[in-house]
Amino acid sequence: MGIDPNPFAGDGDAPIGIFDSGVGGLTVLRAIQRRLPNESLIYLGDTARIPYGTRSIATVVRYAVEDAAFVQSQNTKLIVVACNTASAIAADELERRCSVPVLSVIRPGARNAVRATRNRRVGVIATEATIASGAYEKAILAADSEIEVVSRACPLLVPLAEEGWIDHAVTRAVALEYLSDLGSGRIDTLVLGCTHYPILRGVITGVVGDSVHYVDSGEAVAEEVALVLKSRNLERRARSEPTEKFYVTDAASRFARIAELFLGRPVGSVELVGLGA
Amino acid sequence: MGIDPNPFAGDGDAPIGIFDSGVGGLTVLRAIQRRLPNESLIYLGDTARIPYGTRSIATVVRYAVEDAAFVQSQNTKLIVVACNTASAIAADELERRCSVPVLSVIRPGARNAVRATRNRRVGVIATEATIASGAYEKAILAADSEIEVVSRACPLLVPLAEEGWIDHAVTRAVALEYLSDLGSGRIDTLVLGCTHYPILRGVITGVVGDSVHYVDSGEAVAEEVALVLKSRNLERRARSEPTEKFYVTDAASRFARIAELFLGRPVGSVELVGLGA
Repeated sequence: MGIDPNPFAGDGDAPIGIFDSGVGGLTVLRAIQRRLPNESLIYLGDTARIPYGTRSIATVVRYAVEDAAFVQSQNTKLIVVACNTASAIAADELERRCSVPVLSVIRPGARNAVRATRNRRVGVIATEATIASGAYEKAILAADSEIEVVSRACPLLVPLAEEGWIDHAVTRAVALEYLSDLGSGRIDTLVLGCTHYPILRGVITGVVGDSVHYVDSGEAVAEEVALVLKSRNLERRARSEPTEKFYVTDAASRFARIAELFLGRPVGSVELVGLGA
Repeated sequence: MGIDPNPFAGDGDAPIGIFDSGVGGLTVLRAIQRRLPNESLIYLGDTARIPYGTRSIATVVRYAVEDAAFVQSQNTKLIVVACNTASAIAADELERRCSVPVLSVIRPGARNAVRATRNRRVGVIATEATIASGAYEKAILAADSEIEVVSRACPLLVPLAEEGWIDHAVTRAVALEYLSDLGSGRIDTLVLGCTHYPILRGVITGVVGDSVHYVDSGEAVAEEVALVLKSRNLERRARSEPTEKFYVTDAASRFARIAELFLGRPVGSVELVGLGA
């Protein structure tokens, strides 16, 4: 599938496009909005096909390409792949196909982890597909081959976050099962390699400890977005209120309900779009 | 989308087709295989689009119609909708479109619950979409309008079962959170309204109690399949070994791994097919 060139690519007043497999990428949207409060944003959650984290490489690439094509068609000046699984598996393919800059969360997250670690032992927690791709490990080792990377798939954390069991004994027990051996100095830096995990940071900190440096890939990519917009002279200069728009591929009302949990505020209207059908 | 008529519809030696959103329907396959050991079976798991239980009605109908069209195209003599969510939402549409008999799990499960209850208080546990559809409740009340139905969505049980945490403290804690008020005589019959739940029966029984009658919709539909085949003279009479064949829409090796957990034995080859792309 080709992605048509975007005539708005050079227009600083155009929105930044963000896509994710579902609602989790709102933690990335929130980070970008904090860092760049004057930017307009559009967000696509592929809720008809979430989760990506248990799917095959070929399927994740296909879904991500369709997501990016939609986001680019909305006249965005830059695309952020908020989904760690899509970033881990499809980043190169998306950069090749899109006519606007595409930033994914893996490299900024890995870079921040390399900067933060002192003892050169870094943990990465993510979905099955992200861990299986080895993308964080490769990106970290490319920057510093002496770092020991401890990777851990935590598949139950996503459904727990979506169920809203943010500060719940069950979620603590699950975190303990997955992460207890990462405490006590085994690592000094932990990459939260899934967009859902920042909202579980309290529970994760409870198991892994306060002295560990936590890397939120959403915050890391927000910093990168700011740098790219500045270097390309693409910052939004309009004085009008920036806009935000939400699209999903299924179940808009469920999205709106869970979105509030992730953003800490209600979202406006959520529009349903069809992809890949 | 039309579903082409099936020239094998009247051939008793043709296989029974079973479809599900993923691996959970294997509990239905197992029940059918136990009840009808001489029947050949084909199984489709729509692993590229699982889970159905959190999706909208329109999307579940579309996915189920595509699944049924594939299963029918494999020259099956009868189709079993193993997925409770698809059964709850798309059964009528599938019956209308298919040229072979289509049996879904809701009605047989509801009927067995109505037969089993003595105090006329029946619980139903299922996915969000199945509960929201009210399908079990309607089917139970249609048979006996005096029954009190207590419905409960248990979204975390599916990912826990798929993670293989079958007999795990976390799963017990989740079951307690969802189900503790269903014990102590509140109900005397509980419908396990999701194909994943039979493998969690030990944990569920631990919370709801031994004296409750548990309805496995897979076993209920297996009984119905036997009746329909007999009444239509469609039983397989060949003396050769019956065959089984597995198809998935994504991640065949992950399916094979989890399938073993559900069937208690390895599955043979798993073939990847594309649907709806």
